[in-house]
Amino acid sequence: MKRIALLLVLVLAAPAALRADEGMWTYDNFPKDKVKQSYGFSPTDAWLESARLSSVRLAGGCSGSFVSADGLVMTNHHCAHSCIEQLSTKEKDFVRSGFYAHTSADEVKCPEIELNQLVQISDVTAQVNRATEGKSGEDYARAQKAATSAIEKACAASGAAGTDEKLRCDVVALYHGGVYSLYKYRRFQDVRLVFAPEFAIAFFGGDPDNFNFPRYDLDVSFIRAYENGQPFHPENYFHFSPHGAKEGELTFVSGNPGGTDRDLTVAQLAYQRDVALPERLLQLAEYRGALTMFTQRGQEQYRIGEAELFGVENSFKALKGRFQALVDPKLISAKAQTEAALRRKVAKSPALQREAGGAWAEIEKAEAEYKPRRLDYQQIEAGQAFGTKLFRYARTLVRAADELPKPNETRLKEYRDSALPQLKQGLFSRAPIYDELEMFRLSYSLTKMREILGADHPFVKKVLGKKSPDELAQELIAGTRLKDPALREKLFQGGKQAVEASQDPLIQLARAVDPEARELRRWHDEVIEPRETRATEAIAKARFQVEGRSNYPDATFTLRLSYGAVKGYEENGRRVDPITRFAGGFERATGRDPFKLPESWLAAKAKLDLATPFDMATTNDIIGGNSGSPVFNKDLEVVGLIFDGNIQSLGGNYGFDATVNRAVAVESVALTEALDKIYGAHRLVQELKADLRLSWRVERVSAPLLGPLAPPGGRPMGRGAGGRARAR
Amino acid sequence: MKRIALLLVLVLAAPAALRADEGMWTYDNFPKDKVKQSYGFSPTDAWLESARLSSVRLAGGCSGSFVSADGLVMTNHHCAHSCIEQLSTKEKDFVRSGFYAHTSADEVKCPEIELNQLVQISDVTAQVNRATEGKSGEDYARAQKAATSAIEKACAASGAAGTDEKLRCDVVALYHGGVYSLYKYRRFQDVRLVFAPEFAIAFFGGDPDNFNFPRYDLDVSFIRAYENGQPFHPENYFHFSPHGAKEGELTFVSGNPGGTDRDLTVAQLAYQRDVALPERLLQLAEYRGALTMFTQRGQEQYRIGEAELFGVENSFKALKGRFQALVDPKLISAKAQTEAALRRKVAKSPALQREAGGAWAEIEKAEAEYKPRRLDYQQIEAGQAFGTKLFRYARTLVRAADELPKPNETRLKEYRDSALPQLKQGLFSRAPIYDELEMFRLSYSLTKMREILGADHPFVKKVLGKKSPDELAQELIAGTRLKDPALREKLFQGGKQAVEASQDPLIQLARAVDPEARELRRWHDEVIEPRETRATEAIAKARFQVEGRSNYPDATFTLRLSYGAVKGYEENGRRVDPITRFAGGFERATGRDPFKLPESWLAAKAKLDLATPFDMATTNDIIGGNSGSPVFNKDLEVVGLIFDGNIQSLGGNYGFDATVNRAVAVESVALTEALDKIYGAHRLVQELKADLRLSWRVERVSAPLLGPLAPPGGRPMGRGAGGRARAR
Repeated sequence: MKRIALLLVLVLAAPAALRADEGMWTYDNFPKDKVKQSYGFSPTDAWLESARLSSVRLAGGCSGSFVSADGLVMTNHHCAHSCIEQLSTKEKDFVRSGFYAHTSADEVKCPEIELNQLVQISDVTAQVNRATEGKSGEDYARAQKAATSAIEKACAASGAAGTDEKLRCDVVALYHGGVYSLYKYRRFQDVRLVFAPEFAIAFFGGDPDNFNFPRYDLDVSFIRAYENGQPFHPENYFHFSPHGAKEGELTFVSGNPGGTDRDLTVAQLAYQRDVALPERLLQLAEYRGALTMFTQRGQEQYRIGEAELFGVENSFKALKGRFQALVDPKLISAKAQTEAALRRKVAKSPALQREAGGAWAEIEKAEAEYKPRRLDYQQIEAGQAFGTKLFRYARTLVRAADELPKPNETRLKEYRDSALPQLKQGLFSRAPIYDELEMFRLSYSLTKMREILGADHPFVKKVLGKKSPDELAQELIAGTRLKDPALREKLFQGGKQAVEASQDPLIQLARAVDPEARELRRWHDEVIEPRETRATEAIAKARFQVEGRSNYPDATFTLRLSYGAVKGYEENGRRVDPITRFAGGFERATGRDPFKLPESWLAAKAKLDLATPFDMATTNDIIGGNSGSPVFNKDLEVVGLIFDGNIQSLGGNYGFDATVNRAVAVESVALTEALDKIYGAHRLVQELKADLRLSWRVERVSAPLLGPLAPPGGRPMGRGAGGRARAR
Repeated sequence: MKRIALLLVLVLAAPAALRADEGMWTYDNFPKDKVKQSYGFSPTDAWLESARLSSVRLAGGCSGSFVSADGLVMTNHHCAHSCIEQLSTKEKDFVRSGFYAHTSADEVKCPEIELNQLVQISDVTAQVNRATEGKSGEDYARAQKAATSAIEKACAASGAAGTDEKLRCDVVALYHGGVYSLYKYRRFQDVRLVFAPEFAIAFFGGDPDNFNFPRYDLDVSFIRAYENGQPFHPENYFHFSPHGAKEGELTFVSGNPGGTDRDLTVAQLAYQRDVALPERLLQLAEYRGALTMFTQRGQEQYRIGEAELFGVENSFKALKGRFQALVDPKLISAKAQTEAALRRKVAKSPALQREAGGAWAEIEKAEAEYKPRRLDYQQIEAGQAFGTKLFRYARTLVRAADELPKPNETRLKEYRDSALPQLKQGLFSRAPIYDELEMFRLSYSLTKMREILGADHPFVKKVLGKKSPDELAQELIAGTRLKDPALREKLFQGGKQAVEASQDPLIQLARAVDPEARELRRWHDEVIEPRETRATEAIAKARFQVEGRSNYPDATFTLRLSYGAVKGYEENGRRVDPITRFAGGFERATGRDPFKLPESWLAAKAKLDLATPFDMATTNDIIGGNSGSPVFNKDLEVVGLIFDGNIQSLGGNYGFDATVNRAVAVESVALTEALDKIYGAHRLVQELKADLRLSWRVERVSAPLLGPLAPPGGRPMGRGAGGRARAR
């Protein structure tokens, strides 16, 4: 945990004058000319299309890429971590020992991974704006919901046979509502695990080294997209570079940054700094302490709890870095200057003033209104009070029974037709569930509910009665039968009647708390959110008027392309070299977790070329959600695999400082060297090295799979994005 | 955890115009006229002297009072909690079951409690200022140290036979250095436990109800001061009121508030808000999560860990309240206005400008210089890296061997002659030590050291080598023999030679890390602290010039007197009654921890008068450290026992809002009713009710025990105060 030297401040003061390498660009607005100016290379439209189609999103919150003609997908170990754990048992722990499918028949289906390939982007701003024009409050919210769900539905219906579960159509708010885009994806839910190294090398250095550089991690896994029981054959995929990347080389990263807050208003930033981030951090810190102790109960508890612990520690460190960036008064004052400049310009134009003049005050009002009920919302509706996945199943069943009979456009977002494939994948998942872990989670979260809402809160009294949190948790987890996916499927198919007849204690709890939860949801979706969204829309439009659309939008867990170069930096007066080598990993090893190299590495040491590049730092502008993104060169060859950012990159949530902000990636040659010499994964190496130069030739770009425009979705359009730790 | 409505802001803008009831007044500057104006009663000097001499301080961080002619002292259960736990065993757990000494012979010595009775206050400002005049940096620090240790030494030598361990003399910096006072105490180290109720009623409602009101707690313990093996007979003590306190009644509180930050500069407050408090809170939160799980390993682990858990949760809640107060922008801007007004006045006077004009910038500079090394300082010198009391013993032995041969005035403060009695009491304590708890603590703290300083920090590498934190902790705790108080005493007496010859692994660790730790200490004490102290002195003097000395100083864990009244308040639009009754406690009970009444209460219910007042809220201005303070009426009769503040009082660290800030106390009639009818503690009831009207008659005020002026000390004079959770 090094201290963040926030030099980005001066940069922030002049957002229109972008520095070299900054930007998480949408594919339909990529600044080819800037890249040309800086690096002498200008991507063609065909090049861009091929890169886009070679990229995939892991719907749970990561990125990846097709790296063979047979649908092989490269991503991070930590992106497939849950799958690897779900496929493990007490007897056979693939997280610890790694996984390799020697033959195609050995590839095993991941219970909960969904892949999305972005096949088309369309601008639907005009349609959405027409629907909401002149409206406010709940009218606005309902009109927007109706418009976007209609767009998504039409998109999904453009597939072969009416609504096609192989399509995923999301209307995405970009520039905080300045632009609405329809993102049409090809969806894969049959995804199988091919290879994962041991956790000890995937996450060498553990939490102490997380978000640091230099690094020595092989944070990779390979999975494969299947369709109709067969490997999918993408027309576009990245070829593996035989050389990796050299210092100074131009690098592109295509992936799905989960979210940034670079365009928030000062009031929104202050809320993050003073309320949302501190609260979330304190919750994470305490839970981390408890969960760490849970994993220390024994080897089995470590096995079943460690993926969650990784997630908690990762979020904690990321959000802590953001908090530290935000309390730097220079950052806020630079943001305030920028905002004041825009407001002055708005004030000078009567038209802009009419549209956007009151927007900043509106946002403050929304924050002020949200704040006193935020804890109720988080605990009761967002479900923090009930921290077991079994409760999530119960609530999904209860709500699906109510929502599915309604017309599509009036349902809660997560029950729209467009969202159902992902919902069902999660609900029917055969991933194992461990009573001990679920009891711990639920007991913990009920205790915190009582603390956060107060012992005298009516909701707390309703839930606990005279029971202690631990007692209630034990009863509920021991009593529920929702661990059985067949029962969940039966209840889902049985609809309202089946759910109402259920004696399951978690179903009954979910039903009992639904009135309070739904009331909070209504308030959030129809009072708070529209007020804020209308205002941010107005500001974005004002900004377009003033600046043009030369900028990139805040990240929203949609596909973005960034450019940069392999490059070192200065830290505490010392130069940090951008490339590490295998030798350094062996030097850093202590033989003790988390600095313990796996046996396989120790055994293979003599065979390895220790000068092989291991990890690298690049100036690409990325953030959480980019994990698993390919790093590629101008020939569309994979030269690396993003898995982290350096500690200085954590302030990147608010602005990009090219002098020290670095993406951290595994070098492609480290991957092939390790697969070949350490893991003997020859089938995989051959597939990666297969001499199929691909995809960037125009004629091979896939014909549109489906019709033109049209929708599903399921991801909340408003704030925040899946897979991203965002405090509110 | 309710939200704090910070209405104190307007008040803060005009600090000179104090509101009724505000103030933690020194006994030598008590605003008799204000009390007269508000309540029609003006204390005489004799009254004040009697109240002062009837008050005691628990040197570990609490307050108390003499309540009988036989040296009986009333304080809180939570102030004697450690003692009660230390006297317990696995077989006989007095925390759980309560303690009552049926006869005087059954009273048991507390291993680590020291009581201080304040016998004299003298102003030594001129002496201290003369010594430091014109000096800065380390010259300033050394001159001040020499002057204060000389004053303390002379004071201690004024006892019967040279340096008298029955005296304790501390030079205290008030008004952040505007005034230096010598506080001369009579010291008691033979303190015995007389009575404690069950933890379940002492802390009924547990952490959920902590810092809340209404409350239903009997947070009391009785201990007794002994001298020469016999009960001490104070000439001044408080009589118990037969009536308790009624709504609206004038109440005084005499006790030792640990610290407040009402006079900090804006830069100091911003540092608290942005750096110190968030960091400390995150550490506490995580440790709380882990420690809670430790206490859940089993009943015995709960028994040995629960006192520490109470402390952690209490600090966490208190500091969180402070953080929430500080992020209210209105608070900081009110403080900024006040500060700007003072600076304008300073600027208008050439003399003031010369003395104090640069002070604010100096403080900012000190903060800026401290910040980059703060984590090193906290981990290495403040000892956070080594979270076991066994390491504290080791360091004390190592440093005592180096320090004691030096002249008194050049020693580190905690090794001055004046500090040795308390040091030895702690070091030779026979309190039990539990390997499992110490291993947990040390393993935890070493892990955090690696995280906070970073795995590549040279100090981390020096301490851990290739070992994991857990491995090293196990080795050290299993290997050390410092658990044995006889060995500690032997090493202490053996001095440098004995310590250097020791093969004990913790002694060796403490010796190995001492160079780095001492270098940080030197930097802190001779660079950072003098810079800040000089500047705050200058500001205080400027303030005296401008405002006179009509104000009270920030709290410093020295005796203060506050006045107020029993009074309700408004919360979320609803009136909170100032007095609760026994009946309410029975209603609140759920039968489950922490809302489970002890058996003794359930059994006695029929005998009790359920209309008996239980706890009460008063407008007295108190803060942490006041725990255990007597609440008394104008006749010097005890009407209550302070044990907490309401949630709104947490912002009281920065300013007092009389509309909602409330002290929370047990009513004296609840104490006598419970002692009598629930606990059958007739010996104790008789002693409390003994009809000895006392102490406020002038002629009975004790003659000065000792000579006039003179010194010891041991408490850091600069920032922060013992017993107080203060983040830095």
